Amino acid sequence: MINKPQPPERSSRPPRRGARPPRAGGARRMPSHTPFRVEQTVVGNVQKGVLRVVVLGGVEQIGRNMMFLEYGDDIIILDMGLQFPEESTPGIDFIIPNVSYLKTKQKNIRGVIITHGHYDHIGAIPYLSAELGSPTIYTLPLTRAIILKRQGDFTHLPRLHTEEVKQDTKLKLGVFNIEFFHVNHNIFDTVGVAVHTPVGTVCHTADFKFDAHPVGDVPADYAKMERFAKEGVLLLMSDSTGAEKPGHSLSEQDIEQNLEDIFKQAKGRIIVATFASLISRLQQLISLAHKYGRKVAIDGYSMKSNVALSQELGYLKIPKGIMIDIKDVSNHPDDKILFLCTGAQGEGGAVLMRVATREHRHVRLHAGDTVVFSSSVIPGNERSVQYLKDTIYREGAEVFHYQMMDIHAGGHAQQEDLKLMIGIMKPKFFMPIHGNYYMLKLHTRLAKELGIKDENIVIPENGRIIDVTADTITLTKEAVDASAVFVDGLGVGDIKEVVLRDRQAMASDGMFVIIAIIDQKTGKVRGSPDIISRGFIYLKESKDLLYETRNRTKKHIEEMTEKMHPINVQYIKEELREKIAQFLFQKTERRPMVIPVVIEI
Amino acid sequence: MINKPQPPERSSRPPRRGARPPRAGGARRMPSHTPFRVEQTVVGNVQKGVLRVVVLGGVEQIGRNMMFLEYGDDIIILDMGLQFPEESTPGIDFIIPNVSYLKTKQKNIRGVIITHGHYDHIGAIPYLSAELGSPTIYTLPLTRAIILKRQGDFTHLPRLHTEEVKQDTKLKLGVFNIEFFHVNHNIFDTVGVAVHTPVGTVCHTADFKFDAHPVGDVPADYAKMERFAKEGVLLLMSDSTGAEKPGHSLSEQDIEQNLEDIFKQAKGRIIVATFASLISRLQQLISLAHKYGRKVAIDGYSMKSNVALSQELGYLKIPKGIMIDIKDVSNHPDDKILFLCTGAQGEGGAVLMRVATREHRHVRLHAGDTVVFSSSVIPGNERSVQYLKDTIYREGAEVFHYQMMDIHAGGHAQQEDLKLMIGIMKPKFFMPIHGNYYMLKLHTRLAKELGIKDENIVIPENGRIIDVTADTITLTKEAVDASAVFVDGLGVGDIKEVVLRDRQAMASDGMFVIIAIIDQKTGKVRGSPDIISRGFIYLKESKDLLYETRNRTKKHIEEMTEKMHPINVQYIKEELREKIAQFLFQKTERRPMVIPVVIEI
Repeated sequence: MINKPQPPERSSRPPRRGARPPRAGGARRMPSHTPFRVEQTVVGNVQKGVLRVVVLGGVEQIGRNMMFLEYGDDIIILDMGLQFPEESTPGIDFIIPNVSYLKTKQKNIRGVIITHGHYDHIGAIPYLSAELGSPTIYTLPLTRAIILKRQGDFTHLPRLHTEEVKQDTKLKLGVFNIEFFHVNHNIFDTVGVAVHTPVGTVCHTADFKFDAHPVGDVPADYAKMERFAKEGVLLLMSDSTGAEKPGHSLSEQDIEQNLEDIFKQAKGRIIVATFASLISRLQQLISLAHKYGRKVAIDGYSMKSNVALSQELGYLKIPKGIMIDIKDVSNHPDDKILFLCTGAQGEGGAVLMRVATREHRHVRLHAGDTVVFSSSVIPGNERSVQYLKDTIYREGAEVFHYQMMDIHAGGHAQQEDLKLMIGIMKPKFFMPIHGNYYMLKLHTRLAKELGIKDENIVIPENGRIIDVTADTITLTKEAVDASAVFVDGLGVGDIKEVVLRDRQAMASDGMFVIIAIIDQKTGKVRGSPDIISRGFIYLKESKDLLYETRNRTKKHIEEMTEKMHPINVQYIKEELREKIAQFLFQKTERRPMVIPVVIEI
Repeated sequence: MINKPQPPERSSRPPRRGARPPRAGGARRMPSHTPFRVEQTVVGNVQKGVLRVVVLGGVEQIGRNMMFLEYGDDIIILDMGLQFPEESTPGIDFIIPNVSYLKTKQKNIRGVIITHGHYDHIGAIPYLSAELGSPTIYTLPLTRAIILKRQGDFTHLPRLHTEEVKQDTKLKLGVFNIEFFHVNHNIFDTVGVAVHTPVGTVCHTADFKFDAHPVGDVPADYAKMERFAKEGVLLLMSDSTGAEKPGHSLSEQDIEQNLEDIFKQAKGRIIVATFASLISRLQQLISLAHKYGRKVAIDGYSMKSNVALSQELGYLKIPKGIMIDIKDVSNHPDDKILFLCTGAQGEGGAVLMRVATREHRHVRLHAGDTVVFSSSVIPGNERSVQYLKDTIYREGAEVFHYQMMDIHAGGHAQQEDLKLMIGIMKPKFFMPIHGNYYMLKLHTRLAKELGIKDENIVIPENGRIIDVTADTITLTKEAVDASAVFVDGLGVGDIKEVVLRDRQAMASDGMFVIIAIIDQKTGKVRGSPDIISRGFIYLKESKDLLYETRNRTKKHIEEMTEKMHPINVQYIKEELREKIAQFLFQKTERRPMVIPVVIEI
């Protein structure tokens, strides 16, 4: 169903009245910005001769990438990714795209194309595939292997339909003729997609960068892109993640020398934390270990499984006898060990944090160890990484971080490469994808510098319908429901905004439940009301406050019930909520969520 | 009282058992690292002929700076700062130093020296001064004015005792002879402190940088520092905030050209957000406005009050007729306006956010406006700043950020300047202060490069007692209580760790209160138990789960009460908590805080 309005659940939180000092670090309750109000809840039919392009996620945030193209009765989907939670979504596991619209058009879905194996492009597949009638997923070998491996973690789900494609495969899905083109990214088998539609060719760059010297890979397929350009590209949709950064991104080869310097000087073990899917980095490190006579141990579920898959498919070359089990690390001299692991973002449960805090079963830090963070810090993780670095230094180890030397190359094209992509493709229309709004906006400037006219550029919004013909591109006033769907534990979509607001409210000032039992006949409160409070105040040191709250509750209720026949419990609760909240604020300047429970007996 | 152990408040949160996917962005519940267990709860007397140095805050974090020196019966305090809250301290306003030890020695406190007017150095004064018997605060004019202005916000507190000093003032406080030396920082009147003690001279750099071309200020007083060096510096305590950054920090003058370029090209209003206390930046901007014929409006409580103070004291020169009231901004053409405000960290309630989200009473963004973020992003605020930038771009304004051009110079010495400070002072002993552990550690490496021996370097820890004689510096095994004191609303120190843990738990999975009334005689549950739940699940869509939980509660209780005489309510509650938590986890894979309430009637 599209845009079914939800009745707001009543919030038990009193409105803030008093002034409190503004908070620098805390209280970042960012409203999720809705730049555009959906004007029609039922979206019109696709117009004849018009290509409908809709981005369901990934253009107002990093992650949750998913879009579809629709022409007549044919729909193809590009990517099905998840978004990691933010401060404004406490306790949530993931956020996934909303497919309400696509569910109503299941029979028209001709296939799903996945550009590469990162979770922000594949992560929603287990949650959404069956919902959409398990359409066939077309993708390259490594991506397919990662998707199937992950699906294995969801035992109750139906089998996925997948079909392996190659760089030169040509697909026909309904009216759409599809080709792929190789691009560089920090995972192998990343492909851009060219969709030949009845209105013209639409090119989607996937996440990409240009790397003249990639590790274990070849440069992007410029020849094919130039062929598309020659035949005419109607619309280019290009990755904006790096649009804020000037220049070119580092080549993977550039950083090899820096990594080798670390191998040359390290006296103890070398421990490298990086992204689990950064197979080319792992390849470099394993080769260096081979050269410098170190054994290699790996830990971290996702890294181990990616290494196994990549080795099996031939993407990763591991010299014989170099790998050792994590349990055997301590049987080798420190200067003969390379330990690869996850956790470079300071994640609480990941391997590096467990090693640093002495919670890892087999590995502890030694004085003289060298710990290398070979990945950039994802915004929002800075404090965790600082904490992790503190802990590692306290254990006596040495730290190298990408801020100190070039030991990480990002996976995304920066400004000069973005211009190169536009320059090669020479599209008529341009649409930036993948990134926050300001990144998309900056990306459009580059397109303008290269001569693309304002009216030929569209900045998409999640859900907003874009109409494309051979001559025009239009951001229409219609939108499909693209509101965030939250995954939390087993629940998919059962967490609504009100639940998150309550979590934030309780995180800020706690909660305060007061339970009163009223004698139906006399209207008197039996005994003393019970108070349950958490996260509000240290109860052991607040006996007076609790005592007074109980007394006031009893008094307030009995004043109300005296002239009340029959007893209106709802009214009593509301009055009580208001009065107790005010009283607590006055005494503490805090606003816990006050919840009165009134039981008649 | 020192280290009085607190009985742990019972947590209602069941232990996590099941495995959940690791979270990338969320769930960063960092334990506050305690590297050192206090071995003695009663700290021994100060040894004769020994200088006791204790840092109470600021060496395991950024902020909460406070330390004291003690010799015989004399104590002096340096700074009294606050720390802003972190993700691990939800809902907290500030964190302040713990002064338990100093309270027991009130009569020995000879004075408080404040190095400069930033909140991480003065912010705890209103909370701690009276606790310590209102000792005299010695500081320079601007710092004093800011302290007194802030104290005015706390009407119920006794008057502070302050005494204004000058750069060349010499103080005698007990056995301590004190001199000041001018350093550069991003607030005027910052001074380093030289304390001549019976064991030798101790120099404290304050927060500092070296700026050969400061705006409205003179370079640091090298001559005086060299005099101290010549007379002999026993111990140098130096600011480590910039220890990770190579090279020199930018001069304020360097950025002037970049700011001027913005004035030259801006077609609409120029809106600059920066730190409220960065008076030199405001001076530059006001001068540029004068040069380019723009009127200046200022908004933000702290910025307005700092500007007023600075102008009054002669630190800020404002051309006549240039200032206009915020209400009159719209009466001037856009290209004749400079608007200065707070909120460059993306703080929810600050001026820039309100302007961007159209919540400001007088100012909204226009297409064509130029918004300049002239301050670096404090770690932890990255997402808020991204959100703010998105919002500004959506409104059609242009953004300049320090990442794009040099429009912010930090306030702290970077590696080359830190070396310069050590090189000038030539101390016998070295102790890095101000920063996370890894910053202190990196700072000690610079000291070693300059020839200071390992045994002459101490990395301090909050609370740990450091003994200094003319020949030795020792990090002893004793410590005073330096645990964090939380300020939340009116409460100071009444929030304990358990309260924060509860807030985090509720932020993650919400809470679930189940209320059952038992008939004392029959042991039967009256009616159906009540359920109060927030932040756990969307109740409207979870009727079945709630229904089954009520039934199970009733059944569990009645099975227990059947053979129970008399009824053991405590036992029932514990069993119920366990069973219901397990049931809810099994159904949802979430672990709300389960709180059973069992009432006998």
